[in-house]
Amino acid sequence: MARRNHTLAQLKESYLFEEIAKRKARFPQDQLLNLGIGDTTQPLSAPVISALQEAAAKLGCATTYTGYENAFGRTLLREAISQKIYHGKISPEEIFISDGSKCDLARLQQLFHPECMVAMQDPSYPAYVGATKISGKERIIFLSCTPENQFAPDLSELPQIDLFYLCSPNNPTGHVMDHEELKSYISIAQKNGAIIVFDSAYASFIGDPSLPRSIYEIEGSKGVALEMGSFSKMSGFTGVRLGWLVVPKELYFQDGTSVREDWMKISATCFNGASNLAQAGGLAALSEEGMKTSRNITEYYMENAHLLKRSLHLPTYGGKNAPYLWVDLGGKSSWEVFEQLLCDYKIVTTPGVGFGAQGEGFLRLSAFAQREHVEQALHYLQRL
Amino acid sequence: MARRNHTLAQLKESYLFEEIAKRKARFPQDQLLNLGIGDTTQPLSAPVISALQEAAAKLGCATTYTGYENAFGRTLLREAISQKIYHGKISPEEIFISDGSKCDLARLQQLFHPECMVAMQDPSYPAYVGATKISGKERIIFLSCTPENQFAPDLSELPQIDLFYLCSPNNPTGHVMDHEELKSYISIAQKNGAIIVFDSAYASFIGDPSLPRSIYEIEGSKGVALEMGSFSKMSGFTGVRLGWLVVPKELYFQDGTSVREDWMKISATCFNGASNLAQAGGLAALSEEGMKTSRNITEYYMENAHLLKRSLHLPTYGGKNAPYLWVDLGGKSSWEVFEQLLCDYKIVTTPGVGFGAQGEGFLRLSAFAQREHVEQALHYLQRL
Repeated sequence: MARRNHTLAQLKESYLFEEIAKRKARFPQDQLLNLGIGDTTQPLSAPVISALQEAAAKLGCATTYTGYENAFGRTLLREAISQKIYHGKISPEEIFISDGSKCDLARLQQLFHPECMVAMQDPSYPAYVGATKISGKERIIFLSCTPENQFAPDLSELPQIDLFYLCSPNNPTGHVMDHEELKSYISIAQKNGAIIVFDSAYASFIGDPSLPRSIYEIEGSKGVALEMGSFSKMSGFTGVRLGWLVVPKELYFQDGTSVREDWMKISATCFNGASNLAQAGGLAALSEEGMKTSRNITEYYMENAHLLKRSLHLPTYGGKNAPYLWVDLGGKSSWEVFEQLLCDYKIVTTPGVGFGAQGEGFLRLSAFAQREHVEQALHYLQRL
Repeated sequence: MARRNHTLAQLKESYLFEEIAKRKARFPQDQLLNLGIGDTTQPLSAPVISALQEAAAKLGCATTYTGYENAFGRTLLREAISQKIYHGKISPEEIFISDGSKCDLARLQQLFHPECMVAMQDPSYPAYVGATKISGKERIIFLSCTPENQFAPDLSELPQIDLFYLCSPNNPTGHVMDHEELKSYISIAQKNGAIIVFDSAYASFIGDPSLPRSIYEIEGSKGVALEMGSFSKMSGFTGVRLGWLVVPKELYFQDGTSVREDWMKISATCFNGASNLAQAGGLAALSEEGMKTSRNITEYYMENAHLLKRSLHLPTYGGKNAPYLWVDLGGKSSWEVFEQLLCDYKIVTTPGVGFGAQGEGFLRLSAFAQREHVEQALHYLQRL
């Protein structure tokens, strides 16, 4: 008798963004001002397009056609990430190319025992709790991140945990951890023998050079942390699908076995590599010209964030070194204001409560928008 | 304390094809005659290349750029698969686009309870046992498939099983199930309330119209079977990464809940859609022109199979309506003959024992080779 995975029953009826899509579908799509889902809107850079087209041409020719590649990713791409993102601090053999962080997040669950105690920020990216539960881990501790604690929960009273997720710049609150804050999490992980999964999907939005873009900027982190990286927001690859996972050689489980060795087993068994086209595009995105264009696009999005932040009369967090703004609705419910903005002004936002119980009473605004949408929306948002 | 997933310790040191890659690496790669891994070697068709390049160009333009898409796949592609592969018997809403069958195989594990009893053919594709164990399912029954039982195990004495994998045309034996054989599995599944995962990755190699290309050609199958499909071998997409999973609306778990509803939750949480480029290419591969080219390439590979089969003096199975040949080594061990062929003649094959205990004493030859490799290898293989 085909027995269902019992944890599936604990998942909410629909994933947050599916629910928003359903509600949006009631309106003509071209009239909506989209400040909702964190989806990129600006085109890929010229060097990336050339690389994609050249890669396609190669697949059409008998002498340059390639099939399966190394499931861990192309050597050149692993080397480029090692150099351009980690300035050589992480070796190419510790970088595993994937089809994006959401997929890595699901796959990396399988490193850990189902009995593991998992801690995560509340609010946080909804796939954290979903992927954790689907993989059979039911012991989850939510760490409240609110304006009252400056979005930095006190972990000193935590029970014994195996694993915790951290995201900085944070989705959804826009909070960016400084060195001191990250250090405190690393020392908790060291004390507990826990592993941190650090989500750096929004690292490229950090303009302030004093803030860490990677957890590996902090000493001792290679012994306690995995890091998820992504081309999605950095280079506009949300639809192309490309990301990576860093698994340091220094990282071990409680039983003394190597996390990296197990990750290679999981990758080879459960994955077949990112698309060769996406990988060719990723390499071009990390070229000098590609990175320059990406920086211009990042600045465009950050100008959106600046415009939004300046115009809002409600207490608003984030939006500096981070593409998300976290708006305190002063006691109103998230879905109520979401509906009001959608129905009255055709503005799509994301209800804070969709990211966790502590998100109730907040709204997430995304800077990944067309400038004209931002400008039109500002006019209405000022009235809030 | 970060506790390791206990089932990872049960996985062999390295995945079969990684081990072969290691052994191959001892020789100059351009001198090897590759009849090993089932990797395509012929270029993509012209309409596919055009579609890929056009899709790339669209991503470079502000008005045609697209980011995240539906995690379940593009509607046009789901419709094309519904029509071209299933002749309308499966609706587009039952077809979920993915980045390939290996990834689907890993993800679909999460539909089922870890206590499930799983049956699989022995020999079979190594990722079946790997993905099953990694997901925490440790109760596995291996069904011997040997020349003695015509590769069709007797399932009448099976204990209560939840789930079983079937692959036809089979990897590695090349055995193709006829309607009667498939019917018998379906009736066993109906009796047990079990679910069949049918792997149709090699369906396009079936030339004989009397043989079923899909499990859904058999009545009653929609109530018991999932089907994995792939563009890898059909259209040369091994590196592009594109496949699909069929989850019929009529499929339920033991507790009466819908498998398809759960699959939508898993897809939305653990996946973010196949690459938009790969999906554009897949649509072109299913065009009239695209399918015609694919058929020509399939014929090329099947001519390889024919040449190999005709020349071997050892008892050989498969190679008809299937791209794999399964060679009985007459008592010699798989790795011994693998090493002999590699060291003496630079021929790369796949040792049968890598697919399971019942594969010992066999060798898999793959027809996905360059014709000149096949022709050069024939000369030596005749001496076996």
